[in-house]
Amino acid sequence: MKVLVWNENRHEQKNEEVAKIYPDGIHGAIKQFLTEDKIEVDTATLDEPDHGITDEKLAETDVLIWWGHLAHHEVKDEIVAKIHQRVLEGMGLIVLHSGHFSKIFKKLMGTSCDLKWREADDKERMWVVDPAHPIVEGIGEYIEIEKEEMYGEHFDIPAPDELVLVSWFEGGEVFRSGCTYKRGHGRIFYFRPGHETYPTYYHEDVQKVIKNAVKWANPVKRTYSSYGNAKPLEKIESK
Amino acid sequence: MKVLVWNENRHEQKNEEVAKIYPDGIHGAIKQFLTEDKIEVDTATLDEPDHGITDEKLAETDVLIWWGHLAHHEVKDEIVAKIHQRVLEGMGLIVLHSGHFSKIFKKLMGTSCDLKWREADDKERMWVVDPAHPIVEGIGEYIEIEKEEMYGEHFDIPAPDELVLVSWFEGGEVFRSGCTYKRGHGRIFYFRPGHETYPTYYHEDVQKVIKNAVKWANPVKRTYSSYGNAKPLEKIESK
Amino acid sequence: MKVLVWNENRHEQKNEEVAKIYPDGIHGAIKQFLTEDKIEVDTATLDEPDHGITDEKLAETDVLIWWGHLAHHEVKDEIVAKIHQRVLEGMGLIVLHSGHFSKIFKKLMGTSCDLKWREADDKERMWVVDPAHPIVEGIGEYIEIEKEEMYGEHFDIPAPDELVLVSWFEGGEVFRSGCTYKRGHGRIFYFRPGHETYPTYYHEDVQKVIKNAVKWANPVKRTYSSYGNAKPLEKIESK
Amino acid sequence: MKVLVWNENRHEQKNEEVAKIYPDGIHGAIKQFLTEDKIEVDTATLDEPDHGITDEKLAETDVLIWWGHLAHHEVKDEIVAKIHQRVLEGMGLIVLHSGHFSKIFKKLMGTSCDLKWREADDKERMWVVDPAHPIVEGIGEYIEIEKEEMYGEHFDIPAPDELVLVSWFEGGEVFRSGCTYKRGHGRIFYFRPGHETYPTYYHEDVQKVIKNAVKWANPVKRTYSSYGNAKPLEKIESK
Repeated sequence: MKVLVWNENRHEQKNEEVAKIYPDGIHGAIKQFLTEDKIEVDTATLDEPDHGITDEKLAETDVLIWWGHLAHHEVKDEIVAKIHQRVLEGMGLIVLHSGHFSKIFKKLMGTSCDLKWREADDKERMWVVDPAHPIVEGIGEYIEIEKEEMYGEHFDIPAPDELVLVSWFEGGEVFRSGCTYKRGHGRIFYFRPGHETYPTYYHEDVQKVIKNAVKWANPVKRTYSSYGNAKPLEKIESK
Repeated sequence: MKVLVWNENRHEQKNEEVAKIYPDGIHGAIKQFLTEDKIEVDTATLDEPDHGITDEKLAETDVLIWWGHLAHHEVKDEIVAKIHQRVLEGMGLIVLHSGHFSKIFKKLMGTSCDLKWREADDKERMWVVDPAHPIVEGIGEYIEIEKEEMYGEHFDIPAPDELVLVSWFEGGEVFRSGCTYKRGHGRIFYFRPGHETYPTYYHEDVQKVIKNAVKWANPVKRTYSSYGNAKPLEKIESK
Repeated sequence: MKVLVWNENRHEQKNEEVAKIYPDGIHGAIKQFLTEDKIEVDTATLDEPDHGITDEKLAETDVLIWWGHLAHHEVKDEIVAKIHQRVLEGMGLIVLHSGHFSKIFKKLMGTSCDLKWREADDKERMWVVDPAHPIVEGIGEYIEIEKEEMYGEHFDIPAPDELVLVSWFEGGEVFRSGCTYKRGHGRIFYFRPGHETYPTYYHEDVQKVIKNAVKWANPVKRTYSSYGNAKPLEKIESK
Repeated sequence: MKVLVWNENRHEQKNEEVAKIYPDGIHGAIKQFLTEDKIEVDTATLDEPDHGITDEKLAETDVLIWWGHLAHHEVKDEIVAKIHQRVLEGMGLIVLHSGHFSKIFKKLMGTSCDLKWREADDKERMWVVDPAHPIVEGIGEYIEIEKEEMYGEHFDIPAPDELVLVSWFEGGEVFRSGCTYKRGHGRIFYFRPGHETYPTYYHEDVQKVIKNAVKWANPVKRTYSSYGNAKPLEKIESK
């Protein structure tokens, strides 16, 4: 199983505070804890050629993790189209935090993916509303994060196939924070937390959820569907 | 309540057989039976300026019905973007038959919307699998259509919010033929039947379903959501 | 359209505080605001013969509203069985607040319907997460209730067919507060607020939601499904 | 991982034709192919004390498979209540064919679970409508069964959380044949085929689906939710 962690990696270059929290980038931190779990992990970032997403790398990736924020518009449409096609063919996709506004997520959702937000050190408490879901294996009744950026409803997404986590925020809002979707042969998980100025990806439960999500999103092995003109399987009377 | 019936209107110009079945175009036939139901109906077609979809007309439309097939690629992206925005703002959308491959439907679904098809005079029987749905009010256990184009699974759409009708085809396939979705403030219904060479839109039950769908998709009256930066509604301790 | 408001009506008899808030009972308060909306409303209470739910009354009821708390176990199983059958046949059902533990709701859900609760004057803010839903027509981004009993996740219900409202509570919890289900031909809405010691059913937005829900749950007119042994509609080769 | 295969085991005793097809009972045939897959399997049948479902056995079972038909009413309510509780606590449940009318399935669904049926050697073709689902790993576009009992819509179940397979029948019907549900901490799969007079459980694809379903339904390891009175996690102003 091969995971590719993609990170915009711009905040880390521009903002000392972020660089201090994530000296190896957000992608580096995510790679670190996934590797501990014996998962084969590679990384890619925006400023590499083709954003580090070559056809070969994409073809061998089982699950792609996506973190972006400042520069969604710089991601090339042709790369987005290739990722989209790979998801339909079965590649898992985990979209983190501000990735809600990435081209790939918006293209897969078909909606604006807009939301409310606030950077004010809100306490966040993510409640498990679907305890039967493998993505929350090993998680208690909720995940508490001392300080995070607030994301609030209405979150303009299609109703998730499965709603797994709902956030409570200190400032008075709620948010659908853990949402699964299937699109074509691929499985997608949106996971809310992870603002760049907080050490969220070092939080043990946040790491557990991402590890679980990677396993859950691992492609199902089956031949791709055939589409187009189809001969009848049974005799048609009128012909 | 105002309905706009959009039709590509090309088969009717090129193919005598189609022109005979639908002398006023498919849009004309749909307008006819909706008008009988006291609904205010306008029509628009591909070859009109802006495909007959001006900003004014779009702004006043409550429900848009869409039939296209040969010339999906000729529909301008800017018009599609405007329709998309209006759906998110609450306009209802009913996509008919080969409209599954229209730009607007693909954009809203986020998938390829591909399927199997066959023009072989298959008998079709659409079974009601959600008898509690207002879209099938007045419909029996199934709708039988003597001859139709076959559409078969896998139909590459997101799992519908509600699956209302499932088709049986004589040649051995099944198809999810009546599917509802919500996107933003808008409600969407995909309804399978209606190949241009058959008199399907004169079928009483097909007309009933479309009439019911128009009522169901009528926009909910509420202020559009506010997005973006949001002040806290409660005091945040750390600030 | 005929609505029957059922109320346990015990708190009102035992507790002066409740009697003061609801001098005509909770059922009386609900009847009052529904009547203003030109809906034909009757009421029934636990201590009437057959709990006020005769076969005749049940047969003519389009939507049943249910409030119970102290005496769920006193509701006779045979009455519950009749209500259950009527829901499957198409009668709408709106279950309020502590009705989550009623026999009829548990029977329809198939789960324990358990939850967390606290009587501590929590502020509640119910956020609209499905702005396209007719049940929230005329409602803003959220409904705020100054003081209410807290209900918290995990709420042991099947994933709702549609999740319309999510509550934020001052004490730190969230709750799926507006949930729709279809069972057989019938539509069901669970709506959280309404603890007996608060004047919640005089809240304008709470009233609006219940009014909208009544319209939404109104039965679809169609013949009941036929079940059992079925003759083939097509020739079976091997016979 | 421990699987318990429960079978009514009455047809096998009464009907020579069935005994010939399943000399070790339907439970024996299912145990056989699961064992090949290195899964630890036990069996239980109706006529054993407590139907072979002791508290100890139930406590250690990860996934329960259920086949019943003639004698649903003979299954004791107290045993059904224990199974129900175990499902809510996380035990997986796979309900096969005529188990749609079992007490445990009806209790979990909350509906009549009624359907149409016919014993007429219909050809059945189960189409995959959710290719991203692990339950259809290794399965082609459809599973064809030469002869089976027909089950037809309307199938009176709650809309499945996930619809995986839809059947086409030679006699003209369709059926939702592979349906997943979550109830409490447990996952449930209903799988249609398996009439006792056909060798369906020797069909390679049918076996694959059941093997996949067993893995999918394996309980998620997490502490059971806590319910009831809850102290606030945050300060409530008014107190």
